[in-house]
Amino acid sequence: MVRIFDTTLRDGEQTPGVSLTPNEKLEIALKLDELGVDIIEAGSAITSKGEREAIKLITSQNLNAEICSFVRALPVDIDYALECNVDSVHLVVPTSEIHMKYKLRKTKEETLESALKATEYAKEHGLIVELSAEDATRSDVSFLIELFNKGAELGADRACVCDTVGVLTPERSFELFKTLSENVSIPISAHCHNDFGMATANTISAIRGGAQECHLTVNGIGERAGNSSLEEVVMALHTLYNIKTNIKTEKLYETSRVVSRLMKLPVPPNKAIVGDNAFAHEAGIHVDGLVKNTQTYEPISPEAVGNRRRIILGKHSGKAALKYKLKLMGISLTNEEFEKVYDKIKNLGDLGKYISDIDLKTIINEVKGEIIKKKILLDELTVVSGNKITPVASIRLDFADECRKEQLIETAFGVGPVDAAINAIRKALSGVADITLEDYRVKSIGGGTDALVEVVVKLRRGHEVVEVKNSQGDIIRASVEAVMEGINLLI
Amino acid sequence: MVRIFDTTLRDGEQTPGVSLTPNEKLEIALKLDELGVDIIEAGSAITSKGEREAIKLITSQNLNAEICSFVRALPVDIDYALECNVDSVHLVVPTSEIHMKYKLRKTKEETLESALKATEYAKEHGLIVELSAEDATRSDVSFLIELFNKGAELGADRACVCDTVGVLTPERSFELFKTLSENVSIPISAHCHNDFGMATANTISAIRGGAQECHLTVNGIGERAGNSSLEEVVMALHTLYNIKTNIKTEKLYETSRVVSRLMKLPVPPNKAIVGDNAFAHEAGIHVDGLVKNTQTYEPISPEAVGNRRRIILGKHSGKAALKYKLKLMGISLTNEEFEKVYDKIKNLGDLGKYISDIDLKTIINEVKGEIIKKKILLDELTVVSGNKITPVASIRLDFADECRKEQLIETAFGVGPVDAAINAIRKALSGVADITLEDYRVKSIGGGTDALVEVVVKLRRGHEVVEVKNSQGDIIRASVEAVMEGINLLI
Repeated sequence: MVRIFDTTLRDGEQTPGVSLTPNEKLEIALKLDELGVDIIEAGSAITSKGEREAIKLITSQNLNAEICSFVRALPVDIDYALECNVDSVHLVVPTSEIHMKYKLRKTKEETLESALKATEYAKEHGLIVELSAEDATRSDVSFLIELFNKGAELGADRACVCDTVGVLTPERSFELFKTLSENVSIPISAHCHNDFGMATANTISAIRGGAQECHLTVNGIGERAGNSSLEEVVMALHTLYNIKTNIKTEKLYETSRVVSRLMKLPVPPNKAIVGDNAFAHEAGIHVDGLVKNTQTYEPISPEAVGNRRRIILGKHSGKAALKYKLKLMGISLTNEEFEKVYDKIKNLGDLGKYISDIDLKTIINEVKGEIIKKKILLDELTVVSGNKITPVASIRLDFADECRKEQLIETAFGVGPVDAAINAIRKALSGVADITLEDYRVKSIGGGTDALVEVVVKLRRGHEVVEVKNSQGDIIRASVEAVMEGINLLI
Repeated sequence: MVRIFDTTLRDGEQTPGVSLTPNEKLEIALKLDELGVDIIEAGSAITSKGEREAIKLITSQNLNAEICSFVRALPVDIDYALECNVDSVHLVVPTSEIHMKYKLRKTKEETLESALKATEYAKEHGLIVELSAEDATRSDVSFLIELFNKGAELGADRACVCDTVGVLTPERSFELFKTLSENVSIPISAHCHNDFGMATANTISAIRGGAQECHLTVNGIGERAGNSSLEEVVMALHTLYNIKTNIKTEKLYETSRVVSRLMKLPVPPNKAIVGDNAFAHEAGIHVDGLVKNTQTYEPISPEAVGNRRRIILGKHSGKAALKYKLKLMGISLTNEEFEKVYDKIKNLGDLGKYISDIDLKTIINEVKGEIIKKKILLDELTVVSGNKITPVASIRLDFADECRKEQLIETAFGVGPVDAAINAIRKALSGVADITLEDYRVKSIGGGTDALVEVVVKLRRGHEVVEVKNSQGDIIRASVEAVMEGINLLI
């Protein structure tokens, strides 16, 4: 059993540009506790008033996890931590020549003395102490052993080895942690950074070498290239090494998304374990294998980590992928129709186009000679906005039904031109169907004001939900067309 | 010397939703050749007509790199590769029980036979053959040795071991590649996937075990969690292992950005080596150390990989960071002013706010009691668009200078309303200053059409570049105000 020390709220929050309010920190702490982490480093109490407010909020919740504050080897840091009622301190002392000389401007002896004094002070005040060596992987190993053992004599509970600039290799990590755990009288924990992309492997090698605890962040966030990623280390330990932790793995995806949302740091689609592509498949040979046996192209099931499988159609898709998709969508085609649909997908793929579910439906309807029966059509849309004008839109919608000749005409204001246009549509349709906009997302693709803008809308009518994507240069038209398409799918 | 086999254009392009046109593929191939990769896997010739067009375009360039096509063990695949004039084929055969049984529905003997026949066929036609075992890391090792050695007898030039579902560990990788390189008569290459976040470490362990070549993608893109990342493996080999490659490392950042732009896959800020945060620093203790000696918190210099250092101000910043920033910006403050600015930054940071360079200038001006002297002001903006109208904007700008009474009035079309507005501003200013829009990004914050939209613009005037952010409900106003702010900073 390896103990998980989560530093999402400290090292993770140090990601440049990220700053959480106390309530946001609390929301993440509650999620981490639910996930089963053993220790939550809630922040660094000395940082600011807001930070202390956040830590106090978290310590007041009586969580299962031990709540910890980062401190330097200074009584003032420890006093602030005590004020926040934490269980423990992560007491960090730089131990490398370069850090002691250039940053701290202290000798080895002075560094050691201040570390031990601070340990003593924290223990006298009833704190659990994790004595931590910063830049330990560029430090003299015998100095680390001396520091940790002398700290242990004064009551330090755990020792932590920080690979501050991420220069460990799996081999060096194994050797270092083996030497330390054989020569230090308290349990050792590993704190790795990802500057060369090896934080996960280095953390696992540390555990193989004897570390009993590791420092991790959700989504691998943190300063520079980030810290060891919680989901990667935990799933590799469970799956590839048969080493257990207290993490409830099925909550990994959900936790990842809460952290991403509050920190405003999107999860890269190809992030291992929790990325949206981690279990997505496009290539023909992959989908072909997958349909026959999911283990062919999935090392673990997406459900095990709360994620889901996605089959994507594109130029690399084979016939198996299309068949699988059609089955999922409940659509049957003749052989001839199937071949035609398949060719069209390949051609679109060659043109650099991504084929959404809606695109697929359109292609199928074309091939079958069926016209998508749109019930409501956009006839006319005009939007006027500017810096001295309240954005306003007028809209004219037609019923596709020949017998229904009346038009729906409306106008509406909005906070911006898109909002005005969508408000006008909603007003126009209020008598026809009760449709609500659940989500609206926009992002640019490419780098100019004339580049494509991708709009994703999620609409709900009762229990039915549709998600429609539209990309074009004009954000208003993309938004309006996506909404109109969604409405037609729902009614 | 380790040889780099780049599969950005094959495995990388299999990233769900990604599809390149032939010209885009060519642009990437040229960059990869410039970067110094030894082998470029340009695609899979059988995939489609467009794919073959792309491969032909690339082989027609007479690049330094060997150009390769992915093929299955089928004559038809090899014929298509030959049609594209490639130097080599990456001939892939599934070798694991699960892949042979469920995907291929073939026995071991049948698989071996088809692999050898295909090898013979490819060699007869003058191709370099890299015989590759798919899902090799879940395969019987003696079967791999048999396959590779029999292939070698028929002329196969290299053997490749694919960790198709990313289940290797560094230890297993080292052992496997050691056994194989001791028992196989041709050079071995390693192809690793990142499902547990260990692709980089596994690739390096393979090299330590005896692999002489490795398969990598720029930015670590690829299906699911992606492939081994070129920049990580190369920099770890050069820096931590003193193993050389032909890669010109100072071109890594630029290559990363070309691939990102053409594939429309943003590089995560905390991506090791090439991420925008890879050399960014916010925390007080970090910046404090960095200012004294960059090695305290940087394992390599950002210039070595074509990236750059960034100092970020936020709630974790200490006074050293602020001092450093002010020095860079050429601003001097009294002690009293400095303390006031510092307190304001801390307060904003606690409120969850990220402090941009523009925010900092505003704070300084506030503290100094100076008003920012805008040179050009937005007087009036009107935009009209719709589904039956070519988006059009009219703009009226004022000079802030009292003596310059004339106004700049312009009108312009655009692909959408934002483009029209920005085009009008650029036209209006064409006589004043030559400012180009380098980048424009937009994303929504929150989920409604009335939610905030964040616009980031990057403007250039000669060598000076500014990046300005603006968030508000109206996308047109956010875009225009960001551009106006940037223009005022530049002139």
